[in-house]
Amino acid sequence: MELKNKRKKIVVIGGGTGTFTVLLGLKQIPNLDISVIVSMMDSGGSNRVIRDEFGLLPTSDIRQCILALSSDNTDEVIRRLFNYRYTQGTGISGMTFGNLFMAALTDILKSQKKAIEETSRILDVSGKVIPVTFDNSQLIATYDNGIQVLGEHFIDEPSKKTIYHKITNLEVFPSAKINSDASKAIVEADLIILGPGDLYTSILCNIVVDGMAKKVFKSKAKKLYIANLMTRFGQTDGFGLKEHIEEIEKYLGKDSLNYCLFNQTEKISRKAIQWYKSNDVEPVIDNYKGRVRVIKKDLVSNKFYKQSKSDKLVRSLIRHDSGKLAKAIVKILEQ
Amino acid sequence: MELKNKRKKIVVIGGGTGTFTVLLGLKQIPNLDISVIVSMMDSGGSNRVIRDEFGLLPTSDIRQCILALSSDNTDEVIRRLFNYRYTQGTGISGMTFGNLFMAALTDILKSQKKAIEETSRILDVSGKVIPVTFDNSQLIATYDNGIQVLGEHFIDEPSKKTIYHKITNLEVFPSAKINSDASKAIVEADLIILGPGDLYTSILCNIVVDGMAKKVFKSKAKKLYIANLMTRFGQTDGFGLKEHIEEIEKYLGKDSLNYCLFNQTEKISRKAIQWYKSNDVEPVIDNYKGRVRVIKKDLVSNKFYKQSKSDKLVRSLIRHDSGKLAKAIVKILEQ
Repeated sequence: MELKNKRKKIVVIGGGTGTFTVLLGLKQIPNLDISVIVSMMDSGGSNRVIRDEFGLLPTSDIRQCILALSSDNTDEVIRRLFNYRYTQGTGISGMTFGNLFMAALTDILKSQKKAIEETSRILDVSGKVIPVTFDNSQLIATYDNGIQVLGEHFIDEPSKKTIYHKITNLEVFPSAKINSDASKAIVEADLIILGPGDLYTSILCNIVVDGMAKKVFKSKAKKLYIANLMTRFGQTDGFGLKEHIEEIEKYLGKDSLNYCLFNQTEKISRKAIQWYKSNDVEPVIDNYKGRVRVIKKDLVSNKFYKQSKSDKLVRSLIRHDSGKLAKAIVKILEQ
Repeated sequence: MELKNKRKKIVVIGGGTGTFTVLLGLKQIPNLDISVIVSMMDSGGSNRVIRDEFGLLPTSDIRQCILALSSDNTDEVIRRLFNYRYTQGTGISGMTFGNLFMAALTDILKSQKKAIEETSRILDVSGKVIPVTFDNSQLIATYDNGIQVLGEHFIDEPSKKTIYHKITNLEVFPSAKINSDASKAIVEADLIILGPGDLYTSILCNIVVDGMAKKVFKSKAKKLYIANLMTRFGQTDGFGLKEHIEEIEKYLGKDSLNYCLFNQTEKISRKAIQWYKSNDVEPVIDNYKGRVRVIKKDLVSNKFYKQSKSDKLVRSLIRHDSGKLAKAIVKILEQ
């Protein structure tokens, strides 16, 4: 598959596994300029150590995006190392090699920006991995019961006080300013992709950075939202496609999205549905009737993902298929 | 400088900074097959974590030798990373990046041997870095007051009980068997080099591994000892060249050494001598009269080395010059 016409510029906004999957697919398309704008609000696990003990911005999402865009020719051992999470050593167990690599490199080069660039070079990345901001900020969510929660990690893994409540407002504190490279990529883009990924902690956490919503809204690019397959416990319980789109446009601006890619739910295996049910999540249903053009396709991978033992976070077991996503994205790009 | 005749095989036995310096010089000589047999008894600092918490053999000396033999074309950033020691992070501060790199790789490849080989490949090493043994052993030193000390680290940094006492016996516990690759390299060698380096904890710790002394003694290779510049506090206080050579031949076998390279002491700066004096060390004097051919040359680097802040060990501030050493070694090889 390739683009029929001239070289196009795509900006993917996100950070988590969903973004990884999108990038993996897009990387295979020739004539595509890929930039990924990555959330810097992560505060759990390996990132907590990176933030609190190294005084750096979180790098897990950066590391994942670098891996996704790394060339197939990159040394296989280096790639495996970058996927590696330590299971031994006091203070080391649970850390990822990639985060320790970038922490060392930041200290050596005295710049996290340069460390990201050098890591991208060593892993032979095609495209640009751009932190949404270089300001050290935390996410704050306000829930419909008035509770405020500080820190991406605590929003991601809800407490008893927030568990069945909706997020009514998301912001960053202290305020963070858009990275000028992110700004430039958005202005030049032909297509801007949001999602898939956790609505508040992977997608909107980028949009609430000062300047982001305005830049995206004003960009001449087509704006595409790739809908999540499943609801996210503690974040989007009971959300259909309508609620997802409405939340995005609440932060991004009214009538800002043009397209939405939505999976045909019948492709999700019963095994996966059962597992999700026992974890209080369910497929996102299409209850949307509106202006955004919703394109429905089979977008799901046939692989069934397993949880990594050393990974303390809960991650989704069914995933979008990167090839199917890329194909659908190219079609939108050429419309 | 290059060899006049055909390709020659050199085996360097050691592990510490002295070995690093020798390798750095030898690497520049064309037509030389270099193998370095590295001590695996290290138990301090970063190695303690590697041994106790990762259950692996120590890798600091391995890492240093890999760096020394890495090609000048190796990615500069990768080289700097391998020299990097963390100064932040609970449980991470004091660890070297190289040790964490090899620990991750050992877990991925399920073999420390393969991890060393892969690391050598990634750093484009010319030559072979060979652990003296793959058995997990500790060094035991017995002092002339009957005290026994277990662990390289505690021999290296003497306690009040051992501080002014001589080591009367050095052994490993439990017993460790020579690595077959080490055995092969020794059998095929044209020249075997011991030192410079801490007599007991960098040099003889290799020789006391089962099979090492016998293999070296029986090898047809010329055997060269490169004498230390200074005595080592708590190990070789008051030792002249005579005592160094006698100790080596005590473990290696009577009349086992052929050559000795000895520095002309007048080249050591007054500044360095003063620093050493305040740290209870002094230049090794030539009090040797015997069969071993002692070659005296200016072998000292003009650089004055500084201590790294994050490095908790005391390291020597004057060093051999790698180029001068290599030149002298080639001369011996061609005699």
